[in-house]
Amino acid sequence: MSIGVCYFPEHWPRERWETDAAQMADAGIEYVRLAEFSWSIIEPERGVFDFSWLDEAIEVLADHGLKVVLCTPTATPPKWLVDEHPEILQADRDGTSRHFGSRRHYCFNSPQYRTETRRIVSAMASHYADIPAVVGWQTDNEFGCHGTVRCYCEDCSAAFSEWLSERYDDIDDLNERWGTTFWSQRYRSFEAVNPPRPTPAEHHPSHLLDYYRFATDSVVDYNRLHVEILRDHGDWFITHNFMGDFETLDAHKVSDDLDLVSWDSYPTGFVQDRRSGSPSMDELRAGDPDQVGMTHDLCRATNNAPFWVMEQQPGDINWPPRCPQPGEGAMRLWAHHAVGHGADVVSYFRWRRCRQGQEQYHAGLRKQDGSADRGYVDALNAAGELDAVDPNHVDAPVALLHDYENWWAIDIQPHAPDFDYWEHHRSYYRALRSRGVQVDIVHPEASLKGYEAVVAPCLHLVDDDLAARLTDFVEGGGELLMGARSGVKTPANQLHETLAPGPLADLAGVRVEQHESFAKATDLAVKFDGDDYAYSVWGEWLAPEEATVVVAEHTVGPAAGQPAITRAERGGGSVTYCGIWPDEDLLDALVTGLLSRGDIYIGERLPAGVRLNERDGLTWVTNFTGEPRNIDVADGDLLVGGETIEPYGVAVVSGPRSAVTVR
Amino acid sequence: MSIGVCYFPEHWPRERWETDAAQMADAGIEYVRLAEFSWSIIEPERGVFDFSWLDEAIEVLADHGLKVVLCTPTATPPKWLVDEHPEILQADRDGTSRHFGSRRHYCFNSPQYRTETRRIVSAMASHYADIPAVVGWQTDNEFGCHGTVRCYCEDCSAAFSEWLSERYDDIDDLNERWGTTFWSQRYRSFEAVNPPRPTPAEHHPSHLLDYYRFATDSVVDYNRLHVEILRDHGDWFITHNFMGDFETLDAHKVSDDLDLVSWDSYPTGFVQDRRSGSPSMDELRAGDPDQVGMTHDLCRATNNAPFWVMEQQPGDINWPPRCPQPGEGAMRLWAHHAVGHGADVVSYFRWRRCRQGQEQYHAGLRKQDGSADRGYVDALNAAGELDAVDPNHVDAPVALLHDYENWWAIDIQPHAPDFDYWEHHRSYYRALRSRGVQVDIVHPEASLKGYEAVVAPCLHLVDDDLAARLTDFVEGGGELLMGARSGVKTPANQLHETLAPGPLADLAGVRVEQHESFAKATDLAVKFDGDDYAYSVWGEWLAPEEATVVVAEHTVGPAAGQPAITRAERGGGSVTYCGIWPDEDLLDALVTGLLSRGDIYIGERLPAGVRLNERDGLTWVTNFTGEPRNIDVADGDLLVGGETIEPYGVAVVSGPRSAVTVR
Amino acid sequence: MSIGVCYFPEHWPRERWETDAAQMADAGIEYVRLAEFSWSIIEPERGVFDFSWLDEAIEVLADHGLKVVLCTPTATPPKWLVDEHPEILQADRDGTSRHFGSRRHYCFNSPQYRTETRRIVSAMASHYADIPAVVGWQTDNEFGCHGTVRCYCEDCSAAFSEWLSERYDDIDDLNERWGTTFWSQRYRSFEAVNPPRPTPAEHHPSHLLDYYRFATDSVVDYNRLHVEILRDHGDWFITHNFMGDFETLDAHKVSDDLDLVSWDSYPTGFVQDRRSGSPSMDELRAGDPDQVGMTHDLCRATNNAPFWVMEQQPGDINWPPRCPQPGEGAMRLWAHHAVGHGADVVSYFRWRRCRQGQEQYHAGLRKQDGSADRGYVDALNAAGELDAVDPNHVDAPVALLHDYENWWAIDIQPHAPDFDYWEHHRSYYRALRSRGVQVDIVHPEASLKGYEAVVAPCLHLVDDDLAARLTDFVEGGGELLMGARSGVKTPANQLHETLAPGPLADLAGVRVEQHESFAKATDLAVKFDGDDYAYSVWGEWLAPEEATVVVAEHTVGPAAGQPAITRAERGGGSVTYCGIWPDEDLLDALVTGLLSRGDIYIGERLPAGVRLNERDGLTWVTNFTGEPRNIDVADGDLLVGGETIEPYGVAVVSGPRSAVTVR
Repeated sequence: MSIGVCYFPEHWPRERWETDAAQMADAGIEYVRLAEFSWSIIEPERGVFDFSWLDEAIEVLADHGLKVVLCTPTATPPKWLVDEHPEILQADRDGTSRHFGSRRHYCFNSPQYRTETRRIVSAMASHYADIPAVVGWQTDNEFGCHGTVRCYCEDCSAAFSEWLSERYDDIDDLNERWGTTFWSQRYRSFEAVNPPRPTPAEHHPSHLLDYYRFATDSVVDYNRLHVEILRDHGDWFITHNFMGDFETLDAHKVSDDLDLVSWDSYPTGFVQDRRSGSPSMDELRAGDPDQVGMTHDLCRATNNAPFWVMEQQPGDINWPPRCPQPGEGAMRLWAHHAVGHGADVVSYFRWRRCRQGQEQYHAGLRKQDGSADRGYVDALNAAGELDAVDPNHVDAPVALLHDYENWWAIDIQPHAPDFDYWEHHRSYYRALRSRGVQVDIVHPEASLKGYEAVVAPCLHLVDDDLAARLTDFVEGGGELLMGARSGVKTPANQLHETLAPGPLADLAGVRVEQHESFAKATDLAVKFDGDDYAYSVWGEWLAPEEATVVVAEHTVGPAAGQPAITRAERGGGSVTYCGIWPDEDLLDALVTGLLSRGDIYIGERLPAGVRLNERDGLTWVTNFTGEPRNIDVADGDLLVGGETIEPYGVAVVSGPRSAVTVR
Repeated sequence: MSIGVCYFPEHWPRERWETDAAQMADAGIEYVRLAEFSWSIIEPERGVFDFSWLDEAIEVLADHGLKVVLCTPTATPPKWLVDEHPEILQADRDGTSRHFGSRRHYCFNSPQYRTETRRIVSAMASHYADIPAVVGWQTDNEFGCHGTVRCYCEDCSAAFSEWLSERYDDIDDLNERWGTTFWSQRYRSFEAVNPPRPTPAEHHPSHLLDYYRFATDSVVDYNRLHVEILRDHGDWFITHNFMGDFETLDAHKVSDDLDLVSWDSYPTGFVQDRRSGSPSMDELRAGDPDQVGMTHDLCRATNNAPFWVMEQQPGDINWPPRCPQPGEGAMRLWAHHAVGHGADVVSYFRWRRCRQGQEQYHAGLRKQDGSADRGYVDALNAAGELDAVDPNHVDAPVALLHDYENWWAIDIQPHAPDFDYWEHHRSYYRALRSRGVQVDIVHPEASLKGYEAVVAPCLHLVDDDLAARLTDFVEGGGELLMGARSGVKTPANQLHETLAPGPLADLAGVRVEQHESFAKATDLAVKFDGDDYAYSVWGEWLAPEEATVVVAEHTVGPAAGQPAITRAERGGGSVTYCGIWPDEDLLDALVTGLLSRGDIYIGERLPAGVRLNERDGLTWVTNFTGEPRNIDVADGDLLVGGETIEPYGVAVVSGPRSAVTVR
Repeated sequence: MSIGVCYFPEHWPRERWETDAAQMADAGIEYVRLAEFSWSIIEPERGVFDFSWLDEAIEVLADHGLKVVLCTPTATPPKWLVDEHPEILQADRDGTSRHFGSRRHYCFNSPQYRTETRRIVSAMASHYADIPAVVGWQTDNEFGCHGTVRCYCEDCSAAFSEWLSERYDDIDDLNERWGTTFWSQRYRSFEAVNPPRPTPAEHHPSHLLDYYRFATDSVVDYNRLHVEILRDHGDWFITHNFMGDFETLDAHKVSDDLDLVSWDSYPTGFVQDRRSGSPSMDELRAGDPDQVGMTHDLCRATNNAPFWVMEQQPGDINWPPRCPQPGEGAMRLWAHHAVGHGADVVSYFRWRRCRQGQEQYHAGLRKQDGSADRGYVDALNAAGELDAVDPNHVDAPVALLHDYENWWAIDIQPHAPDFDYWEHHRSYYRALRSRGVQVDIVHPEASLKGYEAVVAPCLHLVDDDLAARLTDFVEGGGELLMGARSGVKTPANQLHETLAPGPLADLAGVRVEQHESFAKATDLAVKFDGDDYAYSVWGEWLAPEEATVVVAEHTVGPAAGQPAITRAERGGGSVTYCGIWPDEDLLDALVTGLLSRGDIYIGERLPAGVRLNERDGLTWVTNFTGEPRNIDVADGDLLVGGETIEPYGVAVVSGPRSAVTVR
């Protein structure tokens, strides 16, 4: 398990590099990422390349035993290129260009930009093909950051028509599957179908969903272009640094072309910018372990392999609205937490606070004057501790099904402003993690072999194939917990003709008679196992088949007396269908029932902010709160930390999670 | 009194139509609306018409005794037309086009689109001229929906100059009446006057008001084009389905060309999207009877005739933020409520939940699998009950004056963000309806003959003619209650040179010395008849003439001691001028005083959510709440319902409203 | 001390002018401002001038002994000019034009508009060169109003490149000082640098800051063009009427070219539209004396001379959201308050409420029917009282350093949404004013000679020169209080390589180890002098030098135990560095400490809303509250008012502020 760092030698005088490299080595750092955003100094004018500075930087680092990960610098096409070819710029929905002056201003579908990309990637790959210190590549940087997955330019318009023509038999097939009879929206050719530009009312949901798919596929294609060139030139690994939740990019699809998945983890930013509600002070100091953990588990499970954190928050950062200092030790905590979730390398962003440009308020391991910042000490500690452990891959007993297309479909027609796809999934994930269970976040098309239980919070778009696969899983003895709004739509974003859960109805043994949506604060309740529980935002009235058991019933409003949760036995397994968004306690009840039926060990319910991770015989206990916590270790040694875990601290136990009790 | 339904046979297989028609007939449905949004299947390519499917659908319906209302399909020009003539698209203020992909994307002033409209309307009208089942037409659909009354394209620019040249003697006349000396805004020709595009500061209020008038006149012209062609071809009625509050379209003007007025009523949506404040759970389940009732009364009074509800909410709907299920029976309640207000036909939107496109979350009377939804049962009940009654026109003793131009003028210069024109009018309307009084919502230019009392909450734009007509009414014995901000401006949206109420000052016997505006929560009060009452948002300091009685005085702030409400006797009647926005209790006091002076029967103050409607000797009692209510019937029979009115229930009594007491 | 008024004779019939002039003279008015926005009637078509109406108006006024200030009418280019040259229009960041229809629609850098400006200003200046009644000129009107300082059109693009080429040695110098290696933003020529158009992520902070400087410099150039022509033609004074806080215009820079500084003061609007938080009812009736006072002091100190209020609020106004009537006497109070702060003339906007256009809801001294409004009585009273006093210039013992470039730098990278530059400065200013101290608001480059104490709330951009000048001040015996976020950046908006306060660190004897930002409501505290005090929004952890005294320490969170405020003795003076945004009580403690060390008289802490102003031996006591206040006068006479100051009242004492105690 190693520590890395992101380094921008071009921001500092050459005479400093030697010192930097020595300090990195002293801290126990193994990997250094270089050359992100370096196009305008690698190729200051068309065709004139200058690799000398980068060659020298790599040499200095290599001399200190450091390994180098290079980046293709395509996230920032230089000004001379933009001026020559302004058609490479992205366009907003209303046609406004996204101009030069920050980053990610290019269109993935621009033929011209693909030519330029081939040029610069080939030049770099061939130059570094024989340098042993260069062990891997990161393609571009954070595809999709700043809402850049979806572009609406003329190149995209042509590419979209082309994409549609490959996906549908003919234009009648598209008309049929989208349902364009509605509001007179029939098309007579693929060429006539444009990007979803501004319209008086909302745009057609099937059109939108295909555009979102097309956009993510455009990134897949564009990334593949890098990968193919890099593979041609060397025997190095290829990764890309994804974002938290992957933004509007389909994580599963892009990862197929990569050797390893990596992502950029900024815990105290994420609680402010991609989660509803106000973060607590603890969360502002250390983040939400389940929010971060869910992307860890998505990254790990996507390629079913260890992953990297390519950028780990090093201290205070610039982009959330507010920036309290992280809690004492938080930078070490995050590294351990990542490894517990299956990371093999945690690489801090960045070596030193930058004096220039947009990220001056973003800390590094060193301050801008070169002195050690709080993160440096934490990184050094983490490096030492993690160097001593070497677990294999995480083996999770539960799969949680997650699909970007479902998110987009819900997002296109939320019908409930508070029905946030991620929050909804996170609430099920949180219930599992509160019981210390390791969870794989997998695509519905992934193999379910080896999982004792599957949680599917919202399989919104469902076809017969998926229904058949889930039926196989359950009939083969699997336990399935299915959430509200499942089986509502065809993959084309049309309603199924049968009532929800559509193709899943036979499996679940239930039909949805009615649905309702509510403001978050509305008083809503069900009776489950004799007790009253609250729910919020979404409610369904269920009509169970005869053999299906009613597990919970509505008690409020016109829904009173209607079934809300049901369970049906199917072969060796069973299916629970939950037609509401349950509160925390009801979710715990549902999840422990599921685990119990799946014969999975159920630990005590963990306090908020404290989490367990078992990985190959080791157990991490991480404390994301400002209060100390005590643990009892029934079996195994404390490899890191003691029985009292300090605020924002960690313990590592050589034993299974069942050996650890948090008091 | 009949029930109808909106039907889209083109969304379903032909083999289903027979079943649908039979089920409609079984439910007691009499009218079926067809062919809205059907252009792209009626004319799939230019000049190639296919009426076969519609012919067959009409035949199937006619075979079951159903009558058909057809729609001109112009709300959705097909893609091939837009691609041929992109200049027909609407433009936003900043010039951004409103593209194809939803509906209402055409400009009312496009000469090209008017040509296309003539083509398609003529083709349909001549094709169906001799089909007896076709009894009427709806022009287009919901003019103005999605903010589409006002377009800012080049065609509109030319049409606006032309419109101005017809309205003003010459450009000097415009300069004088607008007042363009201010900020150097003089024009030298009508051609130089453009649509109100984005400007650094707010645009000229007289320019804006004329643009809003021009926009509504453009719709009038465009609608008339349909009407003239339809009248040429057959002896059928012609209507248009207006929106709640008619959006930014002048209801009175468009209605002049129609045989009957109809509108689309969605009670649980309206409380969420066109009213300030948070709706109560009762309102989310059944709507606000006065919000819906006010558009009913506007539609009825506009053409002084019974109206239709062309689209009645059938269950849960897609477009408000949130959608709790309507209360049990609410779909029946709404039909009765509409008839009590003067509707002759209530037509549900729509037969069956649609699987395609933007409105998948909008219920129908049948679910998408064809089974009966909650609304079907309600519709069937309503059909049976309403078939048994046959009242004539509603005869209202009170007129409430309402003018779109006044709304727009207030909207252009609100001077008080909480001074909502509709809310302000609704508060006076609510006070009248709380006493069970039937109210006509009429234009200030309408005849006031036959009314005992007139309420004019805000006659903002006033000229001498209007002042003379109101003076005649009062001197002839009428009772007038006038609200704040009356008589402030000329019809050109300039201040009168005399103090408000300007030309109405002699009639009211009062001048406004000062005005103030406040945040809603500010503590404000007046003393009226010895008691303290609260008011909000707007306050005036009045200077009464000697003979004018001060009815209420301010008690707070620098206004303390200043008159706030006055009354002047004039001939046989009197004029009350109210310079504040009174709270509910003070409004009740003002309104009961008015009714009393007008010798109109004053019932007990009704509980919130319970309303009475008297129509031609019958009285409807409607309960929009989740609690049962009891009534005493002093005289007459209970035709529908019993003495206990269930939640969301209704009773119909054969007797006047004075015979009914709600306990 | 005189009263003036703004007059638009063109809005009224010529036969009225005589009456107006007589009423002005009767009220004691001395100055009348004319001809703002008059271009389209002075030059109704190109080259055809009509001065007759203005000649006559000036004659009528002069006959009554009134002096005239004329305006160049360039804020409103007429429609014929815009139609001939649409390229003069401003453009938004995304390229949308700001069209004709309001005001300020021209670009400062348009070569064509500069030509037109020369034409009209020359024509007016030569026409009025020999009219003795014309004593001065106002250039244009409110540069920057409605966000118009910054334009993004093609003319600006060219002018910006030119401006950069004059500021930087060559493009490498720009690349170095901006730091364009970050995100590959290097430029190869000045021509390649564009205005900061919309970009996917935020724009480069150095680029933005230079664009803001360029924009303000464009106004300076444009204003100078007026000034030069006017100076060529006559011996009259030249001023410009600035806005409250000057919007995004650098007050210091534009003022250099003017003979006197004037500004437009609207107290009850400013509390609503340029201050965070909800205004109190007192503030809605009379404004915030420190908000208004701070612009008074900025105007006075900028040219170190008495200033004018060119537009004084006359009653209720149109542009804030809400408009309660000003408190009784408030219009008189504001005139006195301005004079106490150093105004020599207070000119009310405007003579009479205008019937036309955008400002119909804006009162004048007379109503639209010509009768006296509330402000007329107040103006008349103020004129009489102020005519009797004739103080010289204000002599302030304390300078508060304020720099627009620092504001913009903070605004570009706030890193704390609640860190409002103006609010932060105002909190220090308020602490000083609460102790009755007169304060000069001066630019950091201004001479500090004669000040006993200097307060620098946020010297964000600092170079060595500034550090040296402050060091000289302190070593020469001056007392300096420096606030958070000082010395962070170079003038190019790059981080200094040394830790903050960068070049000021040696002077302050302290380095900033860490910074944190928080939501406003967060619980934060320090211990100062044994007591606990709250702070908010921003916190720094300080590392003092050995000789530096720790004055306050953090007590909460990871900052606990870290120094928060320090003091270092330097030569004859001392420097207090305050790394937090202190609450009101702690600011009072800091400020009284500073005053005490500077041997400045410290009065009792004044109640909120009551302020003292000493000017040349006279002391004004102003009461901005709705409660009466009593004063004791130890020494001197009451020239205006008595010992009880009525609500919204004033007293003037012939004596120093130390002679007055407010009870």
